[in-house]
Amino acid sequence: MEIIEKVLKADARAIAKTISLIENNSSRTQSILKELYPHTGNAFILGVTGPPGAGKSTLVDKLAELIRKQEKTIGIIAIDPTSPFSGGAILGDRIRMQRHSTDPGIFIRSMATRGHLGGLSRATNDAITVLDASGKDIIIIETVGVGQDEVEIVNTAHTSIVVLTPIMGDDIQTIKAGIMEIADVFVINKADKGDYRRLEVDLKNMIEQFSREDGWEAPIVATVAIKDTGLEELLQKIYSHREYILKQDLLKYKAKIRSQMQLMDLIKELALQKICSISLSPEVLEQHLEKIVARESDPYSAAEDIIAAFLKHS
Amino acid sequence: MEIIEKVLKADARAIAKTISLIENNSSRTQSILKELYPHTGNAFILGVTGPPGAGKSTLVDKLAELIRKQEKTIGIIAIDPTSPFSGGAILGDRIRMQRHSTDPGIFIRSMATRGHLGGLSRATNDAITVLDASGKDIIIIETVGVGQDEVEIVNTAHTSIVVLTPIMGDDIQTIKAGIMEIADVFVINKADKGDYRRLEVDLKNMIEQFSREDGWEAPIVATVAIKDTGLEELLQKIYSHREYILKQDLLKYKAKIRSQMQLMDLIKELALQKICSISLSPEVLEQHLEKIVARESDPYSAAEDIIAAFLKHS
Repeated sequence: MEIIEKVLKADARAIAKTISLIENNSSRTQSILKELYPHTGNAFILGVTGPPGAGKSTLVDKLAELIRKQEKTIGIIAIDPTSPFSGGAILGDRIRMQRHSTDPGIFIRSMATRGHLGGLSRATNDAITVLDASGKDIIIIETVGVGQDEVEIVNTAHTSIVVLTPIMGDDIQTIKAGIMEIADVFVINKADKGDYRRLEVDLKNMIEQFSREDGWEAPIVATVAIKDTGLEELLQKIYSHREYILKQDLLKYKAKIRSQMQLMDLIKELALQKICSISLSPEVLEQHLEKIVARESDPYSAAEDIIAAFLKHS
Repeated sequence: MEIIEKVLKADARAIAKTISLIENNSSRTQSILKELYPHTGNAFILGVTGPPGAGKSTLVDKLAELIRKQEKTIGIIAIDPTSPFSGGAILGDRIRMQRHSTDPGIFIRSMATRGHLGGLSRATNDAITVLDASGKDIIIIETVGVGQDEVEIVNTAHTSIVVLTPIMGDDIQTIKAGIMEIADVFVINKADKGDYRRLEVDLKNMIEQFSREDGWEAPIVATVAIKDTGLEELLQKIYSHREYILKQDLLKYKAKIRSQMQLMDLIKELALQKICSISLSPEVLEQHLEKIVARESDPYSAAEDIIAAFLKHS
């Protein structure tokens, strides 16, 4: 297919179009993704998360500029959590795109997939496949760390940054263990505001107390992204973590975890598709729903019955 | 089972324990939920969503107090999106619980389910089943409207409130059509701050321009929840919408939509469970993952193969 050739040649319009097909859950995507997949596995995937207002977009943009100076190509997927309420991200996306529009080495896209068939984590994984196949050296997944899908997505990156600020009243006492497993590098952004020292000390204590399964001890980097402060150090720490996972042979392990999550998502969706097309006709579904609503049945028993009927049928 | 009897008698500890079983994806939940389901269908489900900082928790608490004065019992499920970053919600939960602790007619619980088996929307639906079976008259689902799961959850309520404020720079121009379908009642909270009139006028224009499929025109209510202002009017508008869906015979339709979403979730999870227990042994899965990571296969083809193998097997 022409579109596949173009994606492999890093054609920005073909990449954008393919990601749109993914978002719209087009029937064409499966075959395109199959063709692209053998060309993947080379990109370094960086997750960036943190509470709203931590300055993630600016940090990612500045980091991208720095990476571009090192002659590396970048793909950015910004997951837009506020999309039902505002077009802010899409607007922001355009502004961000314009800033980099003269540079073919950088591709930025925001995603806000809705709907039941597919879901955000599947769509994001598929978009990573596209960017990876297009030869991007580094893929940054940027997300507000809210909502379970978003956290799962960041969890699948090679290296994950958690961005905090001293001004938001992020009481460190309340940060949960979950974030300690996710954060490979802590960033205290807007470090020139608020009580930076206190956050740093608290964070250090927490990192020391928490021993991670993989043995990595997350460094803390102070940045003021808007003033270009601390970004080189941050990039160094990111590369240090990358070195660490390479040395510890964790890259393959991480790739496997990511593939397993992706595979489980795909199996569920495909199984549902099969069931709906083979044994769960709209009429049969309607009968089940009528019974459930009338409390003559319940969704838990109905699901069991539907799967049993499917297995008899096939 | 003793726990079922206790839930049906609205025993708060039994309700809390059952919801914990759901969160932990315990093997016991399925049979408990089946027993509880016939006792459901009586509660009125109210969804409350809006961007962070809109004052949703306070609004919900005040609304709950008002509803309690009408001798109705309430269950509140607060979906905590910031949980990976802070224990704030759980802390807030305790404070909120204490405020109502002398009142057995109100049950508050925050949920922050993680993990792949189940997911937030399934867990929330199951928690609704428990509260509904316990005889709560009104169930409020409170969520920050970020993340796709959260929006889907609110979408399944009988009546959904969208809470905005004049101070947050919610440029109305950027509110998307999606929110117009969700919002049965618009609340402008913190109406004593910022440019209330402008937001109201903009919102009105938008509501007028947008014709909803169900014919309902969403009212706008100004509130200052913290000062108990506008809450009675809000409750009236909520009941008006409830009347509307009753009159238009939309209640059954809404129940069906909710049941369908729940059923699809359950079918997917159950199908995956079956596949894993029958034909996808850890060894076979490992082989697939090895091939995927080595780029000898891809997740899309592997998912197809796994389902084909399952169908042969069963």
